[in-house]
Amino acid sequence: MYRTHNNGSLRLKDVGSNVMLCGWVQKSRDLGGMTFIDLRDRYGITQLAFNESINEPLCAEARKINREWIIQISGVVKERTSKNLKINTGEIEIEVQSLTVLNESKTPPFTIEDDTDGGEELRMKYRFLDLRRNPLKDNLMLRSKMSIETRTYFHDCNFLEIETPYLIKSTPEGARDFVVPSRMNKQQFYALPQSPQTFKQLLMVSGYDKYFQIVKCFRDEDLRADRQPEFTQIDCEMAFVSQQDVLDTFEGLIKHLFNKILGVTFNERFPVMSYNQAINDYGSDKPDIRFKMKINYLDDVAKGKGFAIFDNAQTIAAINVSGCADYSRKKLDELTNWVKRPQIGAKGLVYVKCNEDGSFKSSVDKFFNQEDLSNWSEKCNSKPGDLILLLSGDKSTVQKQLNELRLLMGSRLGLRDPKVFKPLWVVDFPLLEKDEETGSYHAMHHPFTSPKNEDLDLLTTNPLKVRANAYDLAINGVEVGGGSIRIHNRPVQEKMFDLLGFTKEEARAQFGFLLDAFEYGAPPHGGIAFGFDRLCSLFGGKDNIRDFIAFPKNNQGRDVMIDAPSELDASQTKELGIDLID
Amino acid sequence: MYRTHNNGSLRLKDVGSNVMLCGWVQKSRDLGGMTFIDLRDRYGITQLAFNESINEPLCAEARKINREWIIQISGVVKERTSKNLKINTGEIEIEVQSLTVLNESKTPPFTIEDDTDGGEELRMKYRFLDLRRNPLKDNLMLRSKMSIETRTYFHDCNFLEIETPYLIKSTPEGARDFVVPSRMNKQQFYALPQSPQTFKQLLMVSGYDKYFQIVKCFRDEDLRADRQPEFTQIDCEMAFVSQQDVLDTFEGLIKHLFNKILGVTFNERFPVMSYNQAINDYGSDKPDIRFKMKINYLDDVAKGKGFAIFDNAQTIAAINVSGCADYSRKKLDELTNWVKRPQIGAKGLVYVKCNEDGSFKSSVDKFFNQEDLSNWSEKCNSKPGDLILLLSGDKSTVQKQLNELRLLMGSRLGLRDPKVFKPLWVVDFPLLEKDEETGSYHAMHHPFTSPKNEDLDLLTTNPLKVRANAYDLAINGVEVGGGSIRIHNRPVQEKMFDLLGFTKEEARAQFGFLLDAFEYGAPPHGGIAFGFDRLCSLFGGKDNIRDFIAFPKNNQGRDVMIDAPSELDASQTKELGIDLID
Repeated sequence: MYRTHNNGSLRLKDVGSNVMLCGWVQKSRDLGGMTFIDLRDRYGITQLAFNESINEPLCAEARKINREWIIQISGVVKERTSKNLKINTGEIEIEVQSLTVLNESKTPPFTIEDDTDGGEELRMKYRFLDLRRNPLKDNLMLRSKMSIETRTYFHDCNFLEIETPYLIKSTPEGARDFVVPSRMNKQQFYALPQSPQTFKQLLMVSGYDKYFQIVKCFRDEDLRADRQPEFTQIDCEMAFVSQQDVLDTFEGLIKHLFNKILGVTFNERFPVMSYNQAINDYGSDKPDIRFKMKINYLDDVAKGKGFAIFDNAQTIAAINVSGCADYSRKKLDELTNWVKRPQIGAKGLVYVKCNEDGSFKSSVDKFFNQEDLSNWSEKCNSKPGDLILLLSGDKSTVQKQLNELRLLMGSRLGLRDPKVFKPLWVVDFPLLEKDEETGSYHAMHHPFTSPKNEDLDLLTTNPLKVRANAYDLAINGVEVGGGSIRIHNRPVQEKMFDLLGFTKEEARAQFGFLLDAFEYGAPPHGGIAFGFDRLCSLFGGKDNIRDFIAFPKNNQGRDVMIDAPSELDASQTKELGIDLID
Repeated sequence: MYRTHNNGSLRLKDVGSNVMLCGWVQKSRDLGGMTFIDLRDRYGITQLAFNESINEPLCAEARKINREWIIQISGVVKERTSKNLKINTGEIEIEVQSLTVLNESKTPPFTIEDDTDGGEELRMKYRFLDLRRNPLKDNLMLRSKMSIETRTYFHDCNFLEIETPYLIKSTPEGARDFVVPSRMNKQQFYALPQSPQTFKQLLMVSGYDKYFQIVKCFRDEDLRADRQPEFTQIDCEMAFVSQQDVLDTFEGLIKHLFNKILGVTFNERFPVMSYNQAINDYGSDKPDIRFKMKINYLDDVAKGKGFAIFDNAQTIAAINVSGCADYSRKKLDELTNWVKRPQIGAKGLVYVKCNEDGSFKSSVDKFFNQEDLSNWSEKCNSKPGDLILLLSGDKSTVQKQLNELRLLMGSRLGLRDPKVFKPLWVVDFPLLEKDEETGSYHAMHHPFTSPKNEDLDLLTTNPLKVRANAYDLAINGVEVGGGSIRIHNRPVQEKMFDLLGFTKEEARAQFGFLLDAFEYGAPPHGGIAFGFDRLCSLFGGKDNIRDFIAFPKNNQGRDVMIDAPSELDASQTKELGIDLID
């Protein structure tokens, strides 16, 4: 036995007990006659006291010990004279009677503190040291708890956790598949799944009724800051369900997690918003509804006054920013530059200050008089003291740009508190989107997503208007999950493939086994998948998913700690039956 | 809403209720005026009754419905006149009032029954139909329950579930690694993990203290019947633990699972046996201790009597088979042929019948008199009526052969009841084994496995005698888990690499990041990994792990349902920077 307690467990009631502790030396302080060591493990920190007047050789030994060494001590729990109420063990300390160094440590390349002096690159290389720091440890403990609570919820709801294979089939369309050469089947390849989508649908055909899995998925693509080549999904599917059944079940999961993990209770149903409304009001299919600041459309009151930019624009729209009429010229210029950055891409920004005296001051006073501006402010529900920010141009572009501007202003006004959570179901997504370059249709969600029954006729007459039984859950402007009710009816599926431009042969080559399965009694079914990394970071109140993954890859898809990917031996590639080309 | 109840839930107390049910048609019986349909889902079967005299058109519709069609009905719960007490819902039936066909089904290529008429190959191709059968469904439900109970146990023991990466580094020694070419890092490859071993050790260095994960592992090798290229492990590691701490913790897990899954309680500690004793007594490092029939060594009483085969043998050993003295000549010949098969490889089999009258009859009466045979029977603790079976030859070969023979005879005598469970810790494994061809040492478990402190001197003088802090858990002769206490002390690790023939550079190339980590404060640590597929099959009382995996590969590593692995498009290989060679 190495220890009687961990470093987070001793309290005043333990005073007088003989204990053994192990851990890492967080820091030591030599105060002449006394030496104190903070001993750390996953559970906390316990202060060790070495008193020169009680045991001089032991105290001398303790002085030799450096940060991150691992020691084992035995001693007696004492009440501290100067208590530290910030930590759980802060009322006691250990009067050490014996000390063993279990392992020494070189000096870490950065400090193991909440605020470390190590740069990103260095910390990734020494991830095993970075993981010792509290912020990362707290994240991984949160993730572990999220995982067990997710499973508990599903188990209590009679879901089965079923593992689907990782070595699956690559499809010609699977351009983002990672592939795996097979030694036993030379010149043939497996693919790693981008999601278990087809398998979970098969499980419904097999009658498993309620399936879930917390599962790794893989996508070989250029990585944005918040993407990883391997990521974790909470993957779910149910049979004999309507969209409402699905929303109910998974709203239950999210409420359970909020309750168990953060102690946050939602008594009301999560609000539901149509995709069209979300785009119209917020310019986003995942609006952050912690604050209002909706988009207002000013076309009918801003055109025809001789301001060519507006007159030629498809849409003129604005957000009203409360209490910002006092923005300085400099601040407004800075905002203008912000929307003109290539990431946003606006041509310019028009503002109207709603002065406290009821007058207006705008950047387009040359073209619009006080009455015009008053009309605008009425459209925007502005009050004296507010600032109206207008953009114009192509409608969907203006909506996207105003979404970004709205989020920026929301952040600046402190309206996006990471401790406040506002979930929102966004429903009625379009079934199809059009590739502007090729003119062909793509399934917005998945080729098996079902159209709404009432829109079936539109499949022929106006496909882009067809709404899908598809839904996303957004929380605080972050898409945490999405899914759909699937097609289980063969004629509709054929019509869908037709619209997507698949020949029968292509559909067969890509989805053959699933189409086969659908001929042997497929129940109505639907499901959802949540991005688990993202969900954890949201619950942790952070933006970066990487800090919620024990061993993440960097933006180049590399693990710099283990140096992967890396080159193979020529003998290995030969055995695999492959040759490397430039 | 598709249904008010599932097909396993209705009871006598529900009589009179209006219900809606959905499911697959298991079978239908047309009895003239009445048509009955058994409606199936994951939860059970409910009998539907269509009465021609009540609703003729509905009854006519019902008659058109075939097996595996999916229907939705509404009706009233009635008490059955002829009850079926074999199923939970057997006291009621539904008087159907309306019927909707949700989906039709082609006739399945084999019957969806507990005993199906489908061959292995066909059922693998239509796995989604095979999964509808009760035996497979029960297995997957068992597995799901095993999984949640495993997690509950670990969570209650303060373990953290931490996901380790799937895209890791290939090592030159990783001859059985699956590799994954990276698009973003051309000509470089990831490898899929054969186990998360190094990562779990890193997590201990990072201070996570108690880690577990239920995780997929991958091995690209020729497949035996009970191996899969992807398999699932319960992977665990703990810091600041002795071997006893590890055994205690994981014995707790197994007891928890037995209790929760099978209602089997173990009040005693699991027995512990040394590797040497296991080999000596059972000829196996994973003895099935549901029955005795230990190996007896007869060298001192069977040599020197002129029987050249025994006189020239290194070892003469025997098992005593109770009550089989009446084995016929034919049966004994058959046993002899069995041990002479290449899989066993014995040269022949000697038997002694211990007759009820106290006399002996053996196949070597020419060389051994009654007194000799009596001495043998004494060594074997034989009683009148028993049969002694002897093999001779090289000691370790004889032990292996007698192990096989013992298991066969145990099965024949009904001593291996799959409902009886006898766990056994096998400990003190040798640290090293010698490759007879190359004369070099291999780590028996893992190059980071620690030798026993008391055997450290032997590392220099007699390495093969060094015992490791390594342990396996065997249940009923099946190895379900194994692990070790790891080395955390640098000089011992260096000595170990030296013995294994690694140069410093090779050790660095293969384990660099772990060795780095070990320089920054590595705690004493150890762990274990359980084969989850195997554990599930054991709990399910079956031998075949494939039946406990939703979508397994066949012996050629193929998924014949999805047809993977398969060839890639030339454009895909080109984009990956690889060329296929013969």
